[in-house]
Amino acid sequence: MKPLDFRVPGFLFSGIPTWVKKDGRRDLGLIYSEVPASVAGLFTSNKIKAAPVQLSMERLRGGLCRAVIVNSGNANACTGGPGLKDAREVTSLIAEGLAIDERLVFPASTGVIGVPLPVKKIREGIPGLIDHLSPEGWMRTVEAIMTTDTFPKVEVKTCRIKGKQVKLCGMVKGAGMIRPDLATMLSFLVTDADISASLLQRMLGKAAEASFNRITVDGETSTNDTVLLLANGRAGHSCLNRMDRDGEIFQSVLLKVCQNLAGSLVKDGEGATKVVEIEVRGGRNPEDAKKAAYAIAHSPLVKTAFFGEDANWGRIVCALGYSGAQVNPDRIDVFFDKSPIVKNGVGLGGRSEERAGQVLKKKSFKVTVDLHLGKSRFSVLTTDLSIDYVKINASYRS
Amino acid sequence: MKPLDFRVPGFLFSGIPTWVKKDGRRDLGLIYSEVPASVAGLFTSNKIKAAPVQLSMERLRGGLCRAVIVNSGNANACTGGPGLKDAREVTSLIAEGLAIDERLVFPASTGVIGVPLPVKKIREGIPGLIDHLSPEGWMRTVEAIMTTDTFPKVEVKTCRIKGKQVKLCGMVKGAGMIRPDLATMLSFLVTDADISASLLQRMLGKAAEASFNRITVDGETSTNDTVLLLANGRAGHSCLNRMDRDGEIFQSVLLKVCQNLAGSLVKDGEGATKVVEIEVRGGRNPEDAKKAAYAIAHSPLVKTAFFGEDANWGRIVCALGYSGAQVNPDRIDVFFDKSPIVKNGVGLGGRSEERAGQVLKKKSFKVTVDLHLGKSRFSVLTTDLSIDYVKINASYRS
Repeated sequence: MKPLDFRVPGFLFSGIPTWVKKDGRRDLGLIYSEVPASVAGLFTSNKIKAAPVQLSMERLRGGLCRAVIVNSGNANACTGGPGLKDAREVTSLIAEGLAIDERLVFPASTGVIGVPLPVKKIREGIPGLIDHLSPEGWMRTVEAIMTTDTFPKVEVKTCRIKGKQVKLCGMVKGAGMIRPDLATMLSFLVTDADISASLLQRMLGKAAEASFNRITVDGETSTNDTVLLLANGRAGHSCLNRMDRDGEIFQSVLLKVCQNLAGSLVKDGEGATKVVEIEVRGGRNPEDAKKAAYAIAHSPLVKTAFFGEDANWGRIVCALGYSGAQVNPDRIDVFFDKSPIVKNGVGLGGRSEERAGQVLKKKSFKVTVDLHLGKSRFSVLTTDLSIDYVKINASYRS
Repeated sequence: MKPLDFRVPGFLFSGIPTWVKKDGRRDLGLIYSEVPASVAGLFTSNKIKAAPVQLSMERLRGGLCRAVIVNSGNANACTGGPGLKDAREVTSLIAEGLAIDERLVFPASTGVIGVPLPVKKIREGIPGLIDHLSPEGWMRTVEAIMTTDTFPKVEVKTCRIKGKQVKLCGMVKGAGMIRPDLATMLSFLVTDADISASLLQRMLGKAAEASFNRITVDGETSTNDTVLLLANGRAGHSCLNRMDRDGEIFQSVLLKVCQNLAGSLVKDGEGATKVVEIEVRGGRNPEDAKKAAYAIAHSPLVKTAFFGEDANWGRIVCALGYSGAQVNPDRIDVFFDKSPIVKNGVGLGGRSEERAGQVLKKKSFKVTVDLHLGKSRFSVLTTDLSIDYVKINASYRS
């Protein structure tokens, strides 16, 4: 298989170790656009927002970005006024080094909460970080954003817009605290398409709604979640500023890239051994379908049963009962992949249970619930809850 | 220490093994009142209610009870019409054996969901169960209701009402699926006090609100939760039917018994190694204080950090941020026992962190959060999330 080509015209990438992460892995990354790029952004819905999130939200209003500076190993969250000053200082150093406007530099951080950002280490790293900028540097930036991730998560697609070839590359890091309204995630996407900032924002929101907002690992929402999409226009087509046919083409590519990145986030959920799609159908209304799906997707008992490969459908029905959604106990059907296991609220037992047990042995499967109360459906990707999830998170800071 | 005396005038108890539980431990229990007793009951808020819950709820309307028949090893939940028929049959066999009105027999079940109740085993056990009824049988009934519980959870208190000595004995089983609005729990309380059914119901509701409804282990709400309180009047005082001074005396004893039982439930939460009280103060309103407390109490990341004895307060602040409660990030204070660790939203670090680390080594401690936005407070007992929680629940049915 040919290695993927992550070069995007007009973008340079870099990633180096500065020992903010204690193990010497890369922890400082830089994305640089040779020209000011349109930028769209999505940020955590948590009311406690990390300093870099606050700063990036403020700068997003300008609609333009030339550089993204990101570190892992320290979230710069719950660090008060000094944290905000630190985040500003880092972007100012980058702006100086690249000779660009500081307001076009967007910061992001991920890692431990509540510890002052080790600005000295970052400051010392910045000259080398800038020196190493390269069109081929993508994977080094990807490495620099990883924390408990066990593999790099990247995606690349191309399409044609107004006769020009356009490329879109995306990276994402998880891997815990993944839930709707953004996961504990950083995701950076760059494209050489030419798209107005306002259209880009609409496109990103729409794509995230059906990707990053449809996954959950542990129901947590972090302080640092950030998605940034930069479009520098180097592809050379005329600027897209409304959702026409070309807009739809880019939208569908963006959706696909975000969905693939979201899928890999779940696959790499902390300690996850299974990726499970939960689909609820027949909800009385969309809100009910969503509540029911998330109650199942977040239930520790359901998730430990997945880990144990135990077709314990009673826990699924139980979660439906406390989800807050309207349910009729006598009308619930449950399927593991295509095998029915519950019909009209009663377990089918015997062979059905055996077949369901086989499904659970798979790395990836689907649980479908039909409430038979309406036409609404909602689906969400979740993981099992494993012994390793506990191990990873019990000792995260040490 | 003198062994506790669980005899209550007019009550007989029994508990035997019938091999519904696969390991030969006791799994069928019976509580019998020689005279019709006033009865109060609380049941799961889950919309999927087990067959015995449905039946007991129906019979509670009569306000009188003479027998409680309970089995462990099978929840008789999600078993449809046949399940309800099975529950009725069991109560009918008990009524026949004791020569009492079937409508005064209340069933309860706990165990695996979705498997037909093994009525044959229970039917065969009933004559022996009745034969073994004894004033000294309390602990055998207690054993019969245990599932993943690692120790029996009982409480006994006495008080004087209108010059007569009155006794109250309670038992409870957990140990997973413990959350407010009742835990996955069965609790049976018996007293020789003479109290009208309607007053008894009010008293039980009030006591549960400040005990069973203030604990959480994993945020689940089961299909079978049942609390029954029987008062047979054998103490010989005149009947209490309003909340006068004597009523208050009994209420406070009942509260104490329920709180102690609730505390032991959390202590025996599945896999729990720590019992942690989460208190949120300074909430803008009671609803906010409650939301904030439960967000912390249910957060898998907070709970794994407790297990790892890691003073990772960032996760606590993060949970506050997504709790839905109004918070001002710059005004949050956090204490571990009496040691401050966060002041005005910023970690105190250094010695404070060390002291907090010491608190976390304890088996039992308190986390206090002050939001500084109002006067509302709410507190809840929770546990850590351990490797054993996952082990226990991954293999529960096998």
